[in-house]
Amino acid sequence: MRRACTGVEWFEDYRVGDEFLGEPVVLSEKDIIDFARAYDPQSVHIDPTAAKSSPFQGLIASGTHLFAAVWGGMMRAGFLNNQGVGGSEMNLQFLKPVRPNDTLTILSRVTETAISRSRPDRGFVSFQSSIMNQGGDLVMTLRFKHLIRTRPK
Amino acid sequence: MRRACTGVEWFEDYRVGDEFLGEPVVLSEKDIIDFARAYDPQSVHIDPTAAKSSPFQGLIASGTHLFAAVWGGMMRAGFLNNQGVGGSEMNLQFLKPVRPNDTLTILSRVTETAISRSRPDRGFVSFQSSIMNQGGDLVMTLRFKHLIRTRPK
Repeated sequence: MRRACTGVEWFEDYRVGDEFLGEPVVLSEKDIIDFARAYDPQSVHIDPTAAKSSPFQGLIASGTHLFAAVWGGMMRAGFLNNQGVGGSEMNLQFLKPVRPNDTLTILSRVTETAISRSRPDRGFVSFQSSIMNQGGDLVMTLRFKHLIRTRPK
Repeated sequence: MRRACTGVEWFEDYRVGDEFLGEPVVLSEKDIIDFARAYDPQSVHIDPTAAKSSPFQGLIASGTHLFAAVWGGMMRAGFLNNQGVGGSEMNLQFLKPVRPNDTLTILSRVTETAISRSRPDRGFVSFQSSIMNQGGDLVMTLRFKHLIRTRPK
């Protein structure tokens, strides 16, 4: 079921199948180049001319940038509501190139929940986020498990 | 074998067991807060006072920030030498908190190589990067497979 992040705060509030929409993400050519200069200065991310003659035939966003921007879009929508106590593992899949001014839609689905055995004041919630471009292509997925506080007694 | 990134350029240059050292990474409190304000505004990353009363007992770097900073440290050391043609999957593990002014050492090891069956001008190289703090604790691992061009004939 599609839900707003508002009011989804504690471990008990998450149910398998719940879906949360992030804020849409659009990266300009300047955004892509600025981020990549600092963190991923490969020519396909920072040099539009060199990128044209690459297998990607044009500038594409760095995967590190995509991850940060998508996570930012989720956070701006209120995802986790500041009740996260850390995530231990993440799996990122990069399926299609993301180009300047693509509009990315982010949908995060709860795939599993489990109370912590060692700490019953916390539980694990597993998510799969699907990131689509304006053409409906799946460009990226994100799988992760987050530790979230249970409702205070 | 520990190698410099210099001269390691084409698929054939990578051998299982090769290790590449990234540039060390140090994140100041300001770096951590600035990045998290843009991409991961959870209180444990942006609010030193709130972070003190959290389970982490102080400000810690965002995982998205760590990934970007570590990747940057690898790139600044010359990793991939601009011959990468993309990576399709990455697995990140966050094992211990990273705090302001920790010095992170990054060691990336080749775990597997395989020529592409469909495109013999490219091959897959699998890496495992281990990120340690100044106390020798493993704080993060990064596993990924990168497509790299073969030496031009």
